[in-house]
Amino acid sequence: MTEQRNQRPQRPLDTLGQANNSPVLIKLKDEKEISGILQSFDMHINLVLNDAEELENGEVLRRLGTILIRGDNIVYISPSP
Amino acid sequence: MTEQRNQRPQRPLDTLGQANNSPVLIKLKDEKEISGILQSFDMHINLVLNDAEELENGEVLRRLGTILIRGDNIVYISPSP
Amino acid sequence: MTEQRNQRPQRPLDTLGQANNSPVLIKLKDEKEISGILQSFDMHINLVLNDAEELENGEVLRRLGTILIRGDNIVYISPSP
Amino acid sequence: MTEQRNQRPQRPLDTLGQANNSPVLIKLKDEKEISGILQSFDMHINLVLNDAEELENGEVLRRLGTILIRGDNIVYISPSP
Amino acid sequence: MTEQRNQRPQRPLDTLGQANNSPVLIKLKDEKEISGILQSFDMHINLVLNDAEELENGEVLRRLGTILIRGDNIVYISPSP
Amino acid sequence: MTEQRNQRPQRPLDTLGQANNSPVLIKLKDEKEISGILQSFDMHINLVLNDAEELENGEVLRRLGTILIRGDNIVYISPSP
Amino acid sequence: MTEQRNQRPQRPLDTLGQANNSPVLIKLKDEKEISGILQSFDMHINLVLNDAEELENGEVLRRLGTILIRGDNIVYISPSP
Repeated sequence: MTEQRNQRPQRPLDTLGQANNSPVLIKLKDEKEISGILQSFDMHINLVLNDAEELENGEVLRRLGTILIRGDNIVYISPSP
Repeated sequence: MTEQRNQRPQRPLDTLGQANNSPVLIKLKDEKEISGILQSFDMHINLVLNDAEELENGEVLRRLGTILIRGDNIVYISPSP
Repeated sequence: MTEQRNQRPQRPLDTLGQANNSPVLIKLKDEKEISGILQSFDMHINLVLNDAEELENGEVLRRLGTILIRGDNIVYISPSP
Repeated sequence: MTEQRNQRPQRPLDTLGQANNSPVLIKLKDEKEISGILQSFDMHINLVLNDAEELENGEVLRRLGTILIRGDNIVYISPSP
Repeated sequence: MTEQRNQRPQRPLDTLGQANNSPVLIKLKDEKEISGILQSFDMHINLVLNDAEELENGEVLRRLGTILIRGDNIVYISPSP
Repeated sequence: MTEQRNQRPQRPLDTLGQANNSPVLIKLKDEKEISGILQSFDMHINLVLNDAEELENGEVLRRLGTILIRGDNIVYISPSP
Repeated sequence: MTEQRNQRPQRPLDTLGQANNSPVLIKLKDEKEISGILQSFDMHINLVLNDAEELENGEVLRRLGTILIRGDNIVYISPSP
């Protein structure tokens, strides 16, 4: 079974799938950051986070609850902040 | 029936569908925010809101009534503001 | 007949269709606004307005007559200004 | 024949087709404006103008003769300047 | 034969085709301009110019020889500078 | 076998494939840089890096662990930093 | 054979193909320039260069070795710098 998985090379969205239900840190193009629990994503890297917080320079700017982030705003996603 | 729903992983637009007829807060790329009642959306995340208000730093700039927001302006959507 | 309409959920462009021949207010990405009578639109949200006026801070900058606005400039459209 | 035409709702590019061989005013995203005689267009709203002139604040900056404008630079087109 | 050609309306890229092997002036989004002899183009309006020169305010900044310009940088192309 | 490989010209993503599991340096559009071990990529040049570090002017700004970079932020990728 | 080649008009990417294994100069949207030996390209004008150097105002900022440049950053490519 390990060998079978090796036959299809892993792709970036597979890494995102492994982060489901786990905390992630999102860096946005406007320099702000958002942390939260990854609930779902699609191929445009649109994301839904639970317990989301908007951060600037590591400080919580505000609590956002559940949010849908449009993928084109994202610079990177770190599954283990 | 619950099990059937679990077989297709939830996607971000499903979360938007659950927010229909409910209040949402929209963060735009120009830093402004818009609140309103979500009436409809499509796959580009174009949205129609009723009772929309334009906000800046939490203050109401003006009342807009019903508006259609073009999806490419949106940073995030918070279904529970 | 009401039930039939309920079977297809309404989409944002349906709202635009209901605004045909009615006054709309357009907010552009460059902060300017344009008011006019909606004459037609397409799926890119390209719009044709009659009796269009360019506004800044609520003041008429100039009268434009009939114009075609390229959809990618639009932030939002308010069908009831 | 009038009734037949009414069966297909008019679209924005139809308005552009009616402006062929007529003067138009183009507002560009960089705030400049270009006037000229519309010679042709395509679905990306790429345009060819004859007798084109580049304008800023209503003054002619320079005469350009025939030009092809790439559609993604355009804010709006006014067929009756 | 003239009548046959009239049956298909001319499109912007036809104008570009007629400018092949002729001098053109290109206005770029960064305000710079490039002159040269149009050698080829494609549907994205990617262009190859021979004897290209980069201009700013009408002065030659430098000679570039043959260049391929990526179409998305272009504001307009003037076939008769 | 060498001849067979020569029959299909190499493409940019082939170079990325050869860099898998190796250190790469990423230049982003916001001038920041990110170094890490390339774990996977896709045709949009979305990338997953392990042991990623954010750099500015060659100094480590912070350690990021595993990250997914959205491809549209990337200027260039250097497989041998 | 010459006549056969004339039957398909040359396209911009053909010019890039002729520059393979030759020195090229790349102008980027952020005003920087990169020189190197063109190793491969694709239809998005993603490029791989060997012996790449980042230049500003004609001075070498740093040596980059092999790099993959994402095509959407490119203003123009000069095959004979």
